[in-house]
Amino acid sequence: MSDTVLLAHGSGGRLSHDLVRRYFCPAFDNPLLAEMNDAATFALSGADGDRLAFTTDSYVVSPIFFPGGDIGHLAVCGTVNDLATSGARPLYLSAAFVLEEGLPLADLERVVQSMRRSAEDAGVSIVTGDTKVVHRGAADRLFITTAGVGVIPAGVYIGGSNARPGDAIILSGTIGDHGIAVLSQREGLSFSSPVVSDCAPLNGLVSAMLEASVDVRVLRDPTRGGLATTLNEIAAQSGVGIIIEEAAIPVSDGVRGACEMLGFDPLYIANEGKMVAIVAAEAAEAVLSSMHDHPYGKQASIIGRVRAEHPGRVVMKTRLGTSRIVDMLSGELLPRIC
Amino acid sequence: MSDTVLLAHGSGGRLSHDLVRRYFCPAFDNPLLAEMNDAATFALSGADGDRLAFTTDSYVVSPIFFPGGDIGHLAVCGTVNDLATSGARPLYLSAAFVLEEGLPLADLERVVQSMRRSAEDAGVSIVTGDTKVVHRGAADRLFITTAGVGVIPAGVYIGGSNARPGDAIILSGTIGDHGIAVLSQREGLSFSSPVVSDCAPLNGLVSAMLEASVDVRVLRDPTRGGLATTLNEIAAQSGVGIIIEEAAIPVSDGVRGACEMLGFDPLYIANEGKMVAIVAAEAAEAVLSSMHDHPYGKQASIIGRVRAEHPGRVVMKTRLGTSRIVDMLSGELLPRIC
Repeated sequence: MSDTVLLAHGSGGRLSHDLVRRYFCPAFDNPLLAEMNDAATFALSGADGDRLAFTTDSYVVSPIFFPGGDIGHLAVCGTVNDLATSGARPLYLSAAFVLEEGLPLADLERVVQSMRRSAEDAGVSIVTGDTKVVHRGAADRLFITTAGVGVIPAGVYIGGSNARPGDAIILSGTIGDHGIAVLSQREGLSFSSPVVSDCAPLNGLVSAMLEASVDVRVLRDPTRGGLATTLNEIAAQSGVGIIIEEAAIPVSDGVRGACEMLGFDPLYIANEGKMVAIVAAEAAEAVLSSMHDHPYGKQASIIGRVRAEHPGRVVMKTRLGTSRIVDMLSGELLPRIC
Repeated sequence: MSDTVLLAHGSGGRLSHDLVRRYFCPAFDNPLLAEMNDAATFALSGADGDRLAFTTDSYVVSPIFFPGGDIGHLAVCGTVNDLATSGARPLYLSAAFVLEEGLPLADLERVVQSMRRSAEDAGVSIVTGDTKVVHRGAADRLFITTAGVGVIPAGVYIGGSNARPGDAIILSGTIGDHGIAVLSQREGLSFSSPVVSDCAPLNGLVSAMLEASVDVRVLRDPTRGGLATTLNEIAAQSGVGIIIEEAAIPVSDGVRGACEMLGFDPLYIANEGKMVAIVAAEAAEAVLSSMHDHPYGKQASIIGRVRAEHPGRVVMKTRLGTSRIVDMLSGELLPRIC
């Protein structure tokens, strides 16, 4: 047990969860936080009305510009997507900037314009904000923290603890693109098939899915820690087992090649434009079809199912026909990926 | 005109305003942001219901522990107070942490426990959050960004553009305590009268003021840039002149002595537990009396009035009987004070 903060505390994996469970949850103890979803949800005025969703994330990605996006695009999409995972329609965002003295204002302008475009794409307004400046060397260029507020329509109850045995697990597209794109930019790597971040606002996709069926039970965007960590979180929260098929999980040629070269498992690489949905079996085809009609869900597929056996455990049937346990990310794979 | 970010861009004064006006407002252009209040306010479901307030701030104070508080206490109180300036009852906070690799976990625990106590004092819940970790040297120990959501009761409309000629200007207590306390800790200064930060949640005080009168028109907490900058903001937003009396502005002996020694003007020093209120003249005594009954308003006083002459300008009658123009802070006085 370390007595200082380690990079792995920010991995999104096991040590991140330990930090939250040991320090934040006991201190801030309240039922909304205890649900451990990406957004807190609550009713404001009586039980019959719409509920609100509220979420935040800090973005410290390095470098701040990368193939397919930048820290500003990420900061808007990340918070929009966390709201969308609660079934909320994202409405308003805040944006707080920590700037390093000496940052070129042209870089700030580029990031801000990117945020503007992303907010327009997502149909949200950035309505409040803050700017702090620290001495040269006291921060690395630019950190952005966004928070967001959205409205959850009456009758929609989505959360990590709702998965039930028999449910289908749907993934909206290829995995690993964001993490590999940032890594390639940071390390100056180039691959035969270039990899571009998948960073995108998924609230439109989620709306289409919820129109297709009310039986969407869990939504989560597999960011830090990747698909493997997200599925482990859901298995633990719902007290169910999860079984997935390796052959059903889409991976682009570029990501596959990069992962083979670097010794990474795409299951653990961050995504910023993908959604995992757990859906009642009888609703799966309708939801899948609605996703295929949406630009961000064209490669959606059913990758597995929820089962009663082995609660809390995620198992993958490999292409070779064997089974292996897929654990939560331990240690830190790619620091400062988001 | 610099082409890089300067420390003064984070001062809360003239260059901060220029940065917001030049980069953020045009890009994120929307009517809520354009109001330029500390919290954005909006109705969610029809015009008759309560409105919501939403705000955010990043905290980068150095050192993270100082007399009277720490970065966690500040992060909770600052966002609670920004909500209170809209007349909102603060309900829910988010907390996003950027941690430097190597930060002692004991320091994190101390900060988190302080946030817990501050949230309890303010009657708010921290319901959602995030943790990122950056390499050693890529951030200075610990930055916290809080966002907050609150409910504004029907009939309350408070904003920086509501000041009218004849209104009274009330200040809730002494100025300069927070800035001088942080500076003394950072620079290892000691004064004959020790100075302790005034950092406190002011939502209870604001509730008492709003109960005393519905004619509270503007509320603002004079943080970065100090009382001088806050009054200039209000004068500009409302298109009015402001005249204040130096002799009516409470300053503690410790702050006065430190400012004389260091060559600072207390009007420009940050506060974290003070409120400026602009109130209809006929309501001033009732509001003042309600403040005197509250622990955080015991030294409240009427420090001046709003006038039609010299719109956009703040003038102070000095103890010597002369008048001087009090401008917004230009340059940077005390970096990383909050």
